[in-house]
Amino acid sequence: MTQPDLILSAAAIVTMDTENRVIADGAVAISGNTLCAIGTKAELCAAHPATPLRDMGDCVIMPGLINAHAHSGFLRGTAEHLPVWDWLAQHINPMHRMLRPHEAEAASWLCYAESLLSGTTTVLDMWRFMDGSARAAQALGNRLVAVPYVGEHPDYDYFDRLDQNEALIENWHGGANGRVQVWVGLEHLFYADEAGQARAIDMAKHHNTGFHTHCSEAEIELAEFRHRYGKAPMHVLSDLGFFECPRSLIAHAVWLDDAEIDLISRHAVAVAHNPVSNMKLASGIAPIAEMLAAGVPVGLGTDGEKENNNFDMFEEMKTASLLGKLRHRDAAAMDSWECLRMATIGGARALGLDHMIGSLETGKRADLIALRKDTPRMTPFFPDGPWFNLQHNIVHAVRGSDVVLTMVDGAIVVDDGQLQTGDMTAILARIHEVAPDLFARRAAWLAQNPSVQWTDTQGA
Amino acid sequence: MTQPDLILSAAAIVTMDTENRVIADGAVAISGNTLCAIGTKAELCAAHPATPLRDMGDCVIMPGLINAHAHSGFLRGTAEHLPVWDWLAQHINPMHRMLRPHEAEAASWLCYAESLLSGTTTVLDMWRFMDGSARAAQALGNRLVAVPYVGEHPDYDYFDRLDQNEALIENWHGGANGRVQVWVGLEHLFYADEAGQARAIDMAKHHNTGFHTHCSEAEIELAEFRHRYGKAPMHVLSDLGFFECPRSLIAHAVWLDDAEIDLISRHAVAVAHNPVSNMKLASGIAPIAEMLAAGVPVGLGTDGEKENNNFDMFEEMKTASLLGKLRHRDAAAMDSWECLRMATIGGARALGLDHMIGSLETGKRADLIALRKDTPRMTPFFPDGPWFNLQHNIVHAVRGSDVVLTMVDGAIVVDDGQLQTGDMTAILARIHEVAPDLFARRAAWLAQNPSVQWTDTQGA
Repeated sequence: MTQPDLILSAAAIVTMDTENRVIADGAVAISGNTLCAIGTKAELCAAHPATPLRDMGDCVIMPGLINAHAHSGFLRGTAEHLPVWDWLAQHINPMHRMLRPHEAEAASWLCYAESLLSGTTTVLDMWRFMDGSARAAQALGNRLVAVPYVGEHPDYDYFDRLDQNEALIENWHGGANGRVQVWVGLEHLFYADEAGQARAIDMAKHHNTGFHTHCSEAEIELAEFRHRYGKAPMHVLSDLGFFECPRSLIAHAVWLDDAEIDLISRHAVAVAHNPVSNMKLASGIAPIAEMLAAGVPVGLGTDGEKENNNFDMFEEMKTASLLGKLRHRDAAAMDSWECLRMATIGGARALGLDHMIGSLETGKRADLIALRKDTPRMTPFFPDGPWFNLQHNIVHAVRGSDVVLTMVDGAIVVDDGQLQTGDMTAILARIHEVAPDLFARRAAWLAQNPSVQWTDTQGA
Repeated sequence: MTQPDLILSAAAIVTMDTENRVIADGAVAISGNTLCAIGTKAELCAAHPATPLRDMGDCVIMPGLINAHAHSGFLRGTAEHLPVWDWLAQHINPMHRMLRPHEAEAASWLCYAESLLSGTTTVLDMWRFMDGSARAAQALGNRLVAVPYVGEHPDYDYFDRLDQNEALIENWHGGANGRVQVWVGLEHLFYADEAGQARAIDMAKHHNTGFHTHCSEAEIELAEFRHRYGKAPMHVLSDLGFFECPRSLIAHAVWLDDAEIDLISRHAVAVAHNPVSNMKLASGIAPIAEMLAAGVPVGLGTDGEKENNNFDMFEEMKTASLLGKLRHRDAAAMDSWECLRMATIGGARALGLDHMIGSLETGKRADLIALRKDTPRMTPFFPDGPWFNLQHNIVHAVRGSDVVLTMVDGAIVVDDGQLQTGDMTAILARIHEVAPDLFARRAAWLAQNPSVQWTDTQGA
C-alpha cells in the first residue's frame, strides 16, 4: 500500500458505504487526493506508524456533502413573497437581463465559500458567465458541476446561449485537476425553441456530459405542458430525446405522477430534490419516497440564495426528512439514513460521480468534513451500542456551523471553521460593491418596462 | 433620565415594536436590568457621553427569542421514527417512569445552555422535578416559565403531581429576581382524573398564574375527545373551566376547527406553535394564519430535544414560514415579520410577559441578542433603503450559531459566542454521566413489561 501523507482520526467515521458503516474511534488515511485506508484509529496508526496523525477526537468525520442543485447569486432576502412564475417575471428574469460577468463571478465566490464553510464539497451550480464560477472553484477548492442557465429562444435571449455553454465545456470540462465539470443546461424546456432543444441534446451527447434543467416545479407547468404538447412533462422530455443524453438531472420534479416516475427510472435520469425551496415558493411536496423506491437516483439541493435563503445542506437534510414525514403522515418516513444518503452518495449518483465521491471508501477521492461533537446538538453522543443516535443527530440537530474542517480532493480548504483558500472579508465586501449597481440597473429597466410590475419586497 | 450603565451600538437595531421599526446604526442604553433608551448610535452617544459604549458595528441587535414550548431532556436522537402516541408509550413514558431528579436537572442545564447560546432568552419548559430546572435557570441566567409535567391519574402516577406543582409555585414563582415563573401544568387532559382537572384550574386561579397543556397535536385525539366528551377538544377544555384560568397556553393546536379558534379567541388562551415537531411526528399543519387573524396570541416553540432535535428558534421561525407557505400554497403566506413577531413579542403575549419582554422598547427588560452580520447568511445586508432585507435574512438565512452576545435582564450571559455563566464542557459531560444509567433502567423496565414493545432506534 502507498505510504499515506496524513491520517485523520475522529470519534467516529461515518462512511456512507452500502452498509452505512460507522467506525467508532476511527480514522482515514489520505495519499495525495485519495483515501487509501479506512478503519479504526488503532489499526491505521499501527499500519502506518511513520505517517503524521491529526487527532480530531472531538469530531465526527463524514463525506463532504453534495449540493445537487444550486444557483450562485446575491439576491438573498430581496426577492420574497411571490409565487414562482410571478417571482421570475418581477425579480429574477429582469436581474438576468442586467447581470454582467463580474457580478456573476462575485456571486460564485460568495456561494462556494458559504458551501465549503458549511461542509458542502461539491456544488452543481446553474449560473451565468461561468468562466468566473470556474475560476472561483479553482481558487476556493470546491468541486463544481457548472451548468449554464441557457435560454435559446427569442423571448429569453438575455440568458447564456448554447454557444457559450459549448465554449465553457471546451475551456473547463475536467479542469482544476478534474474538480470542475461542465454540463449542458437549459433554464426550462420552454426557454429554448425546437432547434435549441435539439442542439442541447446533441451537445451533451457529443461532449459525453450531463444535461440539467428545471421541470415540474410549479403545478401550473402541468397545464402548460398539456396545452403545448398534450403530455406530461417527463414524457415530453423523453419524446424530445433528452433522456438519450449520457445523463439528465431534473431539478424539483414536484408534480411527477407514477407513470413519469416509472419512465425516468428506466433511463439515465436523476432528480434534485429541493425541499426548502419547494416549501418557500409554495410549489408542493415532491414524491421522493416513490422515486427512491423506483430506483431513481435522488440528490438534495439548496436551490439558490433567493429561494432558501442559505446553502446549509444540513438544514436541507432535516427539511427533506420533515417534509417526507408530513407528506406520508408517517413519522417513520424518510429516515435519517435516507436523508444522509441523498446528501452524499445519492447526490454523487445523481451527478454521475459516485465512482469518485459520495462515500468514504478506499480508492475514492478525499472529500470529507469534520463536525464538532462537543456541542449540545451532538449530546448525547452514541457512536455505537444500543442507543446509537449519530445519524439522527447529524440530520436533525447538527448545522453547517458545526463543520470545523473541509477537505476536497485531499486539500484542506476549511480549517478550524475558517476558509483557508480565500479572504472572506473581501468576498463579502465585493458583494456590497457590486449589488447596488445591479439592483439599480434592474429597477431602471423595470421602470422602462412597466408591463412588468415591480413589487416592494419590504413586506408588511 | 437615569444615567445608563452601558450603551450597545450595532449596524441595526430590530425593535419588534408595533411598527417593526429598524434603526440602522442604532443603539440601546441599559440601566440595571432595563432598557432606558433606544435610538441611533449618534443620538444615544450624544445624550450620554459618559456612559461606556460597546460598539458592535458588525452585528444586529434584536430582542431575545422566546421559546413558548420546550421540554428539557437528553433523549436526542434515541427516540425516533414512531407516531406520537406509540412513541409516548415506547420511549417517553417509560423514561418518565424511571427519571430521577438529578437526571432531570442535568437535562435543564443542557437545554438552557443550548437556548442561551442560540439566542433564546426565555424558555417555557414543561419538565419534571423542576426545582433543579429553576436552579439551572437561576445560575445560567435565562428567563424560565417552569411548568411541571403533571399526571394526576392512576395510569400516570409516575409523573409529577399537583402537590409538587404547588410546592414549586410556592418556592420559585417570581424567583431569581423575577426571571423564574411557575405555572400549573398537565401533560394532557387525559393524564388527570376529574378531581385532578378541577384542582389544576383552582390552583392556577388561586396563585394567579398560567395553565399549560398539550392538546390537538395528533388527529387521533379528536376521535378520543368525541368518544369521551362528545365535543371537540377546545370546547371540552372550556366547559371544564380551564379557560377561566388567568391564562392558558395550548401546545400544538394542530387540529383546531374554525369554531374552536373562535372560542379560544374570546378567552385568555394562547397557542404555542411547534412546526418542526409537528412535521417530525407527522402530526399535521396547524392553522396558524387563521389563529393570528382571529387575534389569538401565538408563540413559537421548539418542543423537546427528542422531537426537533435542537433548540434553535431561528430554525423554528424559518420552518414556521415554510410550513405556512406550504399549507396555503401561497409564497406570500406567513411572512418574515409575522414569524419574527411569533418568536418575540407574540411569544411574550402568549406567556403574559409582553409588558416586560418581547420587544426593544424603553422601560422593558434588557433581554436582547446580537447576531453577526459578517457572514454569507447576512450578505447582502440592507438595513434600510429600497432593498431592505433584514427580516428575511434573519428568518430564512441566519442560524442560532450566528448569535455572539445574549443579555438577559441586563446581564451578559453569552459573549463572543461563549457561555459566561456555566462550564459547557461540564454540562455536556454530565449528560454522558447520567444518560446511560437512565436508559439502562428504562430498558430493564421495558423488559419486565413486555406488553410495551421496545423498538430499535437504529433504523435501517
